[in-house]
Amino acid sequence: MITPRTPSGVLELLPPEQVAFQRMLDVIRSGYERFGFLPIETPVFERSDVLLTKTGGETERQVYFVQSTGALEKAREGGDDALPEMALRFDLTVPLARYVAEHEHQLTFPFRRYQMQRVYRGERPQRGRFREFYQCDVDIIGKDELSVRHDAECPAIIHAIFTDLAIGDFTIQINNRKLLRGFYEDLGITDADQQAAVLREVDKLDKRGPDYLRTTLTGEGFGLSDAVVDAILDFVQVRSTGHDDALEQLARVEAASSGSASLSEGVAELREVLTLVRALGVPESDYRLNFSIARGLDYYTGTVYETVLDDHPEIGSICSGGRYDNLAGQYTKSKLPGVGISIGLSRLFWQLREAGLLEASTSESTVQVLVPQVDAELLDDQLALASQLRHGGINTEAVLDGGKLAKQLRYADRAGIRFVALLGRQEVADGTVTIKDLRRQDQFTVPRAEVVSALKVELAQPLV
Amino acid sequence: MITPRTPSGVLELLPPEQVAFQRMLDVIRSGYERFGFLPIETPVFERSDVLLTKTGGETERQVYFVQSTGALEKAREGGDDALPEMALRFDLTVPLARYVAEHEHQLTFPFRRYQMQRVYRGERPQRGRFREFYQCDVDIIGKDELSVRHDAECPAIIHAIFTDLAIGDFTIQINNRKLLRGFYEDLGITDADQQAAVLREVDKLDKRGPDYLRTTLTGEGFGLSDAVVDAILDFVQVRSTGHDDALEQLARVEAASSGSASLSEGVAELREVLTLVRALGVPESDYRLNFSIARGLDYYTGTVYETVLDDHPEIGSICSGGRYDNLAGQYTKSKLPGVGISIGLSRLFWQLREAGLLEASTSESTVQVLVPQVDAELLDDQLALASQLRHGGINTEAVLDGGKLAKQLRYADRAGIRFVALLGRQEVADGTVTIKDLRRQDQFTVPRAEVVSALKVELAQPLV
Repeated sequence: MITPRTPSGVLELLPPEQVAFQRMLDVIRSGYERFGFLPIETPVFERSDVLLTKTGGETERQVYFVQSTGALEKAREGGDDALPEMALRFDLTVPLARYVAEHEHQLTFPFRRYQMQRVYRGERPQRGRFREFYQCDVDIIGKDELSVRHDAECPAIIHAIFTDLAIGDFTIQINNRKLLRGFYEDLGITDADQQAAVLREVDKLDKRGPDYLRTTLTGEGFGLSDAVVDAILDFVQVRSTGHDDALEQLARVEAASSGSASLSEGVAELREVLTLVRALGVPESDYRLNFSIARGLDYYTGTVYETVLDDHPEIGSICSGGRYDNLAGQYTKSKLPGVGISIGLSRLFWQLREAGLLEASTSESTVQVLVPQVDAELLDDQLALASQLRHGGINTEAVLDGGKLAKQLRYADRAGIRFVALLGRQEVADGTVTIKDLRRQDQFTVPRAEVVSALKVELAQPLV
Repeated sequence: MITPRTPSGVLELLPPEQVAFQRMLDVIRSGYERFGFLPIETPVFERSDVLLTKTGGETERQVYFVQSTGALEKAREGGDDALPEMALRFDLTVPLARYVAEHEHQLTFPFRRYQMQRVYRGERPQRGRFREFYQCDVDIIGKDELSVRHDAECPAIIHAIFTDLAIGDFTIQINNRKLLRGFYEDLGITDADQQAAVLREVDKLDKRGPDYLRTTLTGEGFGLSDAVVDAILDFVQVRSTGHDDALEQLARVEAASSGSASLSEGVAELREVLTLVRALGVPESDYRLNFSIARGLDYYTGTVYETVLDDHPEIGSICSGGRYDNLAGQYTKSKLPGVGISIGLSRLFWQLREAGLLEASTSESTVQVLVPQVDAELLDDQLALASQLRHGGINTEAVLDGGKLAKQLRYADRAGIRFVALLGRQEVADGTVTIKDLRRQDQFTVPRAEVVSALKVELAQPLV
């Protein structure tokens, strides 16, 4: 006998949690589709040479390789040192780049795709770090060019989806890498590597505080003046409060600039993006400028986004992304600029569960009605009722193993099944069904012909 | 530059096909949920020792092993001959067994679960054989016992789902392994291995014909008499025509029996199953007894199912399954009998496409409305309209890159987007929107406030 064990570092859920997780996936997918994105799926593995072009270092260390039994044996016999032929994807961005480059001539640009699949990283197992987790990505890819207007769609999508997910108030933080670059250029920090080093220190501000930052940046490695550090500290603490304030902050930064073209471009882009975000109906309380947001330093080139839960900032960003210049330079000569966002759903789900924010959503089953076995003699009637409900589009479980009615009712209650449709001798004689609402602790009897419509009315009414 | 290539042996789809595939997944899922099944998902990999307990031989040869970079290096340095720690699942049955055994005390039995995920087999790449493919499984697992009544649910589920999928008329073929066993016992073929060998030959009947079967079974290896072969040939050609005929065929087989208890049990089970299948509302033209169905010889122990498309029998069974005595004997002492079915959706999709049966379903986008850019000055109005439609639950793409209107309309048409919502200066002045229906080649103008409800009425009407 082998002990049945889930591999470590994965998020395997029991059915009530899986139902809640699936609902979140459905909300995200429906949000992406409402904004006109098309689904794609790619295989879980890619050819190693395709997957590992760009990377090296950290990413390659975390990759899982895939080998058939035959290849494994051959490698061992022959002392083969070549990389295995295939590896599991570690994100959805590289597969997207491969997909777009490979199918370029069969796609219409701007190509709007969403993709919600699992990705794999050889993390050391620890709480909240997963080796397998869902990413839910949406990207708009242009050919040769892509209007900055598309950068305004991402906050609108984030707003629609996190409103529907109903996990609490949130704020979408917006910044622009060109503005960042220009700001540091204006301060005389023009070298890209030095800028990156400064940004890495600035990123620690929340954790280590301004004194640490000042000591480090004025110290030997950087040698910046106190005045420059003051300017940086002022800058990264900018958070707009409302739309007009955001535009004023942009004007102020531009006025203070000693003329960096990159800064002006960043300001102009942010101005357009913020204006369209408002035109797309995002309330101004739900987005703000935040000049401390930088995101992946090598990857993003323009607008960048992060999203935080107002009451749970400790969770960190729950949806991030940005604009990039060229998606697939490693696979094609075509220039493919894009903008996109990603929701790491497994991690988010885990964090919401840890914070105790999931209890309500894990209490309702996908099963809407239980048809218990009241009387074994009435099995045919019971099954006909279950079929009637299912034909009406109602998720229905019929009890076929019998047992006491009280026990069957207890099962429904514990399983989160809200309605029980009872068919006893009286009901069969009368041509009726008795419906018990276990949530409202209520019951009513309806004619058999009306049971579907009666239940649909009940199901359409929110419980709260 | 690396050539972007999809790994061989996978079914990667372009968006219009992905939309059609996703619709099929949704129909299957909604069917499973309507019958009261709960979702589960398991990780793509399992521990090798857990995955490979039962098997050996063919299955192990087809397994893909998964190794982190570190483990790979260590194995190569150390000449480590142990199996890699993890392997990709090759079906959903072993993960289900592991899941149920591991979480046994947190589950309620009968445990009704569905699972729709990809599985992996190291097949040699060839047309229609995939290394990665979707399986859509549904199973009912009992603890200690599970009433044969549940065996009647599977045909009802198959019927509901394939009716909704609308890929043509189909027939659900039903048989019972106990009846098969009893029949061969009655003929004096009592040894299980010999029975299995005979069944393997009988399975070739369609391909090789009755003469081959007679020659083989009366030949040296088997040494059966002509009379026995006649009985076998009569038996395996039984197909019932309607419910009453099915019951008559069962009566006839039972009457002809020389008293095998196994045969009687099989007959009794089939009688109950068929009766409940009818009670569940499956039309009698859509299911039949077929005594030639055997399915996996080691696995199934009672009722077995196959499903064929009436107009495309060459596709083979599109949904199969059956009853098994004990799901997880390798992981737990608990006896867990079950019954279930599986749809291999990637293969089915590929076969339907090859047979030219998918054209209609790949022509409609998930995007329902395109809001073109009629006039760059009206961008804010255009975006407000897009938001209004999205708030109304309508999947909407807004054109943000401009271009000629005729080109935008051509894009919508080619992309399978049915409606275009036009907002020009006249419409803005009048407070209206002009809707073009590209399928019906029709157009109408509605007040802005009514655009969502007007489109919902149109979308609710089937096109045909």
